[in-house]
Amino acid sequence: MNYLEELKGILGPEQVSVNEAVLDRHSRDESYHEPVKPDAVVFPLNAEEVRRVMKVASKHGIPIVPFGLGTSLEGHVIPYSGGISVDFSLMNQVIEVLPEDFLVKVQPGVTRSQLNQELKKHGLFFSVDPGADATLGGMAATNASGTTSVRYGVMRDQVRDLEVVLADGSIIHTGSLAVKSSSGYNLNGLFVGSEGTLGCFTELTLQVYGIPEMIVAARASFETINQAVDAVVSILSAGIQIARIELVDGQSVAHVNAYSETDYSETPTLFLEFHGNEAGLDQDIEFAKEILTDHECQEFKFEKDVRARNLLWDARHNLAYAVMRASPGKKMMVTDVCLPISQLANGIKSAQEGMHELGFEGGIVGHVGDGNYHAILMIDVDDPDEVARAEKFNERIVAFALSRGGSCTGEHGVGVGKIKYQQQEHGDSLHVMKALKKALDPQNLLNPGKLLQAAERK
Amino acid sequence: MNYLEELKGILGPEQVSVNEAVLDRHSRDESYHEPVKPDAVVFPLNAEEVRRVMKVASKHGIPIVPFGLGTSLEGHVIPYSGGISVDFSLMNQVIEVLPEDFLVKVQPGVTRSQLNQELKKHGLFFSVDPGADATLGGMAATNASGTTSVRYGVMRDQVRDLEVVLADGSIIHTGSLAVKSSSGYNLNGLFVGSEGTLGCFTELTLQVYGIPEMIVAARASFETINQAVDAVVSILSAGIQIARIELVDGQSVAHVNAYSETDYSETPTLFLEFHGNEAGLDQDIEFAKEILTDHECQEFKFEKDVRARNLLWDARHNLAYAVMRASPGKKMMVTDVCLPISQLANGIKSAQEGMHELGFEGGIVGHVGDGNYHAILMIDVDDPDEVARAEKFNERIVAFALSRGGSCTGEHGVGVGKIKYQQQEHGDSLHVMKALKKALDPQNLLNPGKLLQAAERK
Repeated sequence: MNYLEELKGILGPEQVSVNEAVLDRHSRDESYHEPVKPDAVVFPLNAEEVRRVMKVASKHGIPIVPFGLGTSLEGHVIPYSGGISVDFSLMNQVIEVLPEDFLVKVQPGVTRSQLNQELKKHGLFFSVDPGADATLGGMAATNASGTTSVRYGVMRDQVRDLEVVLADGSIIHTGSLAVKSSSGYNLNGLFVGSEGTLGCFTELTLQVYGIPEMIVAARASFETINQAVDAVVSILSAGIQIARIELVDGQSVAHVNAYSETDYSETPTLFLEFHGNEAGLDQDIEFAKEILTDHECQEFKFEKDVRARNLLWDARHNLAYAVMRASPGKKMMVTDVCLPISQLANGIKSAQEGMHELGFEGGIVGHVGDGNYHAILMIDVDDPDEVARAEKFNERIVAFALSRGGSCTGEHGVGVGKIKYQQQEHGDSLHVMKALKKALDPQNLLNPGKLLQAAERK
Repeated sequence: MNYLEELKGILGPEQVSVNEAVLDRHSRDESYHEPVKPDAVVFPLNAEEVRRVMKVASKHGIPIVPFGLGTSLEGHVIPYSGGISVDFSLMNQVIEVLPEDFLVKVQPGVTRSQLNQELKKHGLFFSVDPGADATLGGMAATNASGTTSVRYGVMRDQVRDLEVVLADGSIIHTGSLAVKSSSGYNLNGLFVGSEGTLGCFTELTLQVYGIPEMIVAARASFETINQAVDAVVSILSAGIQIARIELVDGQSVAHVNAYSETDYSETPTLFLEFHGNEAGLDQDIEFAKEILTDHECQEFKFEKDVRARNLLWDARHNLAYAVMRASPGKKMMVTDVCLPISQLANGIKSAQEGMHELGFEGGIVGHVGDGNYHAILMIDVDDPDEVARAEKFNERIVAFALSRGGSCTGEHGVGVGKIKYQQQEHGDSLHVMKALKKALDPQNLLNPGKLLQAAERK
């Protein structure tokens, strides 16, 4: 029997699609990576259906590529070896909120904004906030982070348990409800960031936080990026309880202003946020103001009002879309290195020089409290020379980071775009990773061609 | 050639010992688990020597058991299958402090107090503080934690990179100097807590913290344990920035008083600590006092003075030794379950009933902010009935925890003592763990009989 017929038999015909428009939607992500269509898309309703799909795939030797919303930035969801795209959009329920335990159980297709809507009713919030309104399954798969990880940690820090369907069709749990555990190997950490190469996530138990008593946002503009980065290092060293500290360069502020109708000063700017109790925040803010002034901050503005705060952070979150809108027809390449903080200012300087030398006019933004920054380039993917120059630029940035003990990707993941740096970053550890992959997916059916080694193109 | 001769050839004769007193010291840990001597003890000086030892072990099929200071509580370092105990006491250098990056590089034999002595010079501290002054290599191997993990996290959260000698003699790095990374599988997390079963750690890069502007300690006594636990839940829910929140029952306070010459009220007591800026702490402390009063706290005392704070925490840290001294000739069994916070009060109540029914007079202490508590029993290991009753008690406590979504060990690890609970806690995940072990240590030479399955006794 044809495997499509088998899939329709186990899922119901409306949950299996080979419609060209559906295939096309599952052929791409938000990056410049070349689209390739899957052979079929399935829409499972639960773990048992995923298990059955996995069994069919295994029997026929067909690749399985998990798909959330397609907001990845390194081609993670593109099925370069063909096969079945497993779309989790029908598994989009917030299953249970456990306020006393600061936990929530969700299906993988729930988006972060959907989750926060639900949590708000309990005075809680989920901290990880990448630019896109991604699904939580996708965010766990890439170990996503965002503006708040300087305070609350990355996706891996929030995952208490995953239900995972493995290549052999077994369904496992990687953790428990306990805050901490020294029992067995740390499978939570291994599966988070595995980019669909070790299994499909069908349920996530996530840590959530109480909404802080008080939140104050701030914007501080500088003449140079160096002054801004130095101010960040001083604020971190001072032990100020900073919850967000983001750098946006002048060109990117211009994009923000155009897209979000703001009138921020178009110079290197820090967007900051402080969480705490009122008295503690007042003291922290006074201290932060002193530090900003010492670093020749030209202008700062603190916002306690909810609307003003939301405006500020919406503007920051929409930055990538603002840049995209300014270059219609082009595709986005975003670099994503993470550096030890002491190397950050030099790293950004080197990136700016590289952009200038290679003839690009990209912007630079970053989660500078973590040493993670992005250079955003819009490129014409039909111009091989431009693509080659952009690749060269990315290589230069990664080489700088790796030579300083950094990582080629702070939060976007490897996908297809960063495979070429894995040997250089991990050395002999790469053999260990490949041995783990082989132990859990000997047929190499789970998202082949991602994270570890390039795909055999179909 | 005899493998001992080979070892002496590569290490120098003074680094290889079969002296009975040395073998005896490497036959036991601080627990009730039966001692067994290794066949030899080696004292390597660097990773290259460890690699050579591993090569010899692999060639002759001899087990390798890493040894720090022998402070483990579940028999982790006891060589039940014989073989070579690899003692890291000569690898005890703080290699480099990187204050700007909040990082430190250490050899595995450095103890936590030794590290903190060094860090103090830079205004920094290392947060993880188990009761014992353990080595950092050992603490990483068991994913140790302690009183501060409610604020700063467990050992796994602090490890940025490990240098590891694998079973095949290759030397890998599991991470980088970057604060965050989405590059490759998370080997840091996998190797932390692997209890010597996946490799020997030869260097650790650890996250450290700035000493807080202000620290306030407190002691609060209650009539019942339930009132104390309820107060903890309220303090956590209130979003107070608590750095430590420890429960010590009345009987344990009596041990503390006897050992540390204190005169604390011998009723259920919370030991607390707050870190922050002065204004924020003042507000947090006022709030905490209200909550304590609401929960019928009988007496509380806040200590800003360094000496008074140190006295309080030394007393708490010495508790296990205080209990040991009160029962000379007996050995310690410490339970270590971790529960979702909502289940903690019931868990402790059930433990107290169990102790009473089984005729023990142990104390209960716990890192209650994490849902992790210990019942400490002193047992006569020469009395089979007493050992059997103690085992039964531990089983009962673990069964309660696992039925509520908890873990059989919050911080002590599996060793030999918790292997029997692994199937129940992890289900089919245990197959995954065994597959990973087999992929990385196909000869099962690395600390055999720990964590995953019982040893073949030699």
